[in-house]
Amino acid sequence: MGRDVIKLNANENPYPPAPGVEAAIRGVQAEALRKYPQIDSTDLRQALADYHGLASGSVFAGNGSDEVLAFAFRAFFNSSLPVLFPEITYSFYPVWCRVFGIPYRRVPLAEGFRIDVAGYAGGNGGVVIANPNAPTGLCLERGQIEGLLRANSGSVVIIDEAYIDFGGLSSAGLTERHENLLVTQTFSKGRSLAGLRIGAAFGSPELIRTLDAVKNSFNSYPIDSVAAAAGVASLSDEAYFKKRARQIAATRERAREALEGMGFYATKSEANFLFVSHPGVDAVALQAYLKENGVLVRHFSQRGIERFLRISVGTEVQMDRLLALIEKYLQ
Amino acid sequence: MGRDVIKLNANENPYPPAPGVEAAIRGVQAEALRKYPQIDSTDLRQALADYHGLASGSVFAGNGSDEVLAFAFRAFFNSSLPVLFPEITYSFYPVWCRVFGIPYRRVPLAEGFRIDVAGYAGGNGGVVIANPNAPTGLCLERGQIEGLLRANSGSVVIIDEAYIDFGGLSSAGLTERHENLLVTQTFSKGRSLAGLRIGAAFGSPELIRTLDAVKNSFNSYPIDSVAAAAGVASLSDEAYFKKRARQIAATRERAREALEGMGFYATKSEANFLFVSHPGVDAVALQAYLKENGVLVRHFSQRGIERFLRISVGTEVQMDRLLALIEKYLQ
Repeated sequence: MGRDVIKLNANENPYPPAPGVEAAIRGVQAEALRKYPQIDSTDLRQALADYHGLASGSVFAGNGSDEVLAFAFRAFFNSSLPVLFPEITYSFYPVWCRVFGIPYRRVPLAEGFRIDVAGYAGGNGGVVIANPNAPTGLCLERGQIEGLLRANSGSVVIIDEAYIDFGGLSSAGLTERHENLLVTQTFSKGRSLAGLRIGAAFGSPELIRTLDAVKNSFNSYPIDSVAAAAGVASLSDEAYFKKRARQIAATRERAREALEGMGFYATKSEANFLFVSHPGVDAVALQAYLKENGVLVRHFSQRGIERFLRISVGTEVQMDRLLALIEKYLQ
Repeated sequence: MGRDVIKLNANENPYPPAPGVEAAIRGVQAEALRKYPQIDSTDLRQALADYHGLASGSVFAGNGSDEVLAFAFRAFFNSSLPVLFPEITYSFYPVWCRVFGIPYRRVPLAEGFRIDVAGYAGGNGGVVIANPNAPTGLCLERGQIEGLLRANSGSVVIIDEAYIDFGGLSSAGLTERHENLLVTQTFSKGRSLAGLRIGAAFGSPELIRTLDAVKNSFNSYPIDSVAAAAGVASLSDEAYFKKRARQIAATRERAREALEGMGFYATKSEANFLFVSHPGVDAVALQAYLKENGVLVRHFSQRGIERFLRISVGTEVQMDRLLALIEKYLQ
């Protein structure tokens, strides 16, 4: 693949991280790297706590939200009852369940890929919901999440907010009222830092202490000094973060309208990707055509979504290229 | 604690990393961090392979050797027979065994904290030996390691070389002849990069594939782009690495002689620390005295080594300060 390939297949942010991130990385004194990083990423956790208006004891940080989720599955899903998650969601949930020997059950989605929270009420060893869900991009309402938490007071509910930064409402603040809620986030999407591996979790001090115990029994220092400094710098530039998130959301809406105009069905994604299908188009064939023309998008062979493509939201120019190619394909 | 505290308690390298590391970090384009890192840290693995004269398929990399070891325990210790390791060794081996439900047995050390490899012959679910061992600093001979490998052809033997850079002979090359050998290393000690979290493992392609499968079921991208670039830069400056390792070994020997001259017993450590005791000195009291005077050293309350202190090798100036304090204490 040449240098002009447009990568709309990994939900990476098309824009650079906040300018302060580069400054923070260049400001690192190499001499300081001879020392271990802060064992609990204290400064990064404090910056996250300040950002979300939470107590520092309510914040956990790890090597990407994948590591945070792996630790959380290990820490909180210890029941003989199955952990519940949607039939169509992030593909790693069943992987971690198998790794840790956790029984699980996939709950079918309702019409239009909607999550019906009634399907997750009690009788489980935990619940994990991506909000927005992947790869559909659909968000639950605040009231639905609160209902889910009340209906599962005996088990831990993980809300995975990997894609929350592009329009959804974070549940991080709900952790102060709901002791069974753990919210996970990542710096990979909205903060353009996939290359640095920073994830976070928010929950009651008791949940965070348990998560720390699991971390400390695997790998005590998962976040390095450079990544931690860059993460703090990213959090300090709210204006840049909001501007980029709005920009991506606006591009997403414009691309959605254009695709709908060409006859596509698109979910009401609030994430940094679109999830689309066309009654007259084979998704795999369209994916192959786009690839031949230098644009990568994602297809999932899972039953129920075989006719869909997941298209990450790129820059305006990248999306114009994509839309022009699709228009040509449909002619 | 003030700024003049001398930290000889964490086996950190007293010297900065190779100059090229700072250049590599400053050369990172923040824009590139919006993308995920290489999924298998390809460039770093290739640099490690080239450095050790191994095939790239024989190299694994992870977020510090703690993560590498955690993955290795998970990958290779699956027997109902106990995993064996020395009674006195790195404190995380039993922790990982408990995390993963691995049965284990601690093998008593021989006279003078020596590891007798005869105690590890067969009838086990795996063996893990730190070479040099911690906190004794003692190395096994090459012949002893080869004997250990031959006696355990049915199980995986992990040689943990966290402290190999200061005089010991690496067994990395033995992985080409012994399919049951996994050698782990870290960039934290000899390469002065504890702050960046880089660990590595060397083994047969089959062992490495298994380790990759475990990594990919936990956290696919454990090493970030900046750390990987810094690691490659470190490996490219062999002269600096060797110079610092020799310097630390020379300081260690000088400090050992001085301590022996004051009546201390010191193991023949080949690591970047000394392990010492004195017939007339209570180790905890000496540790407290040193701390009061701004020098931190490590004490382990484990039975059999209560009278010992582990003292990381610092700069010449730092060790002079330590030796002067101890001399004063003994008067």
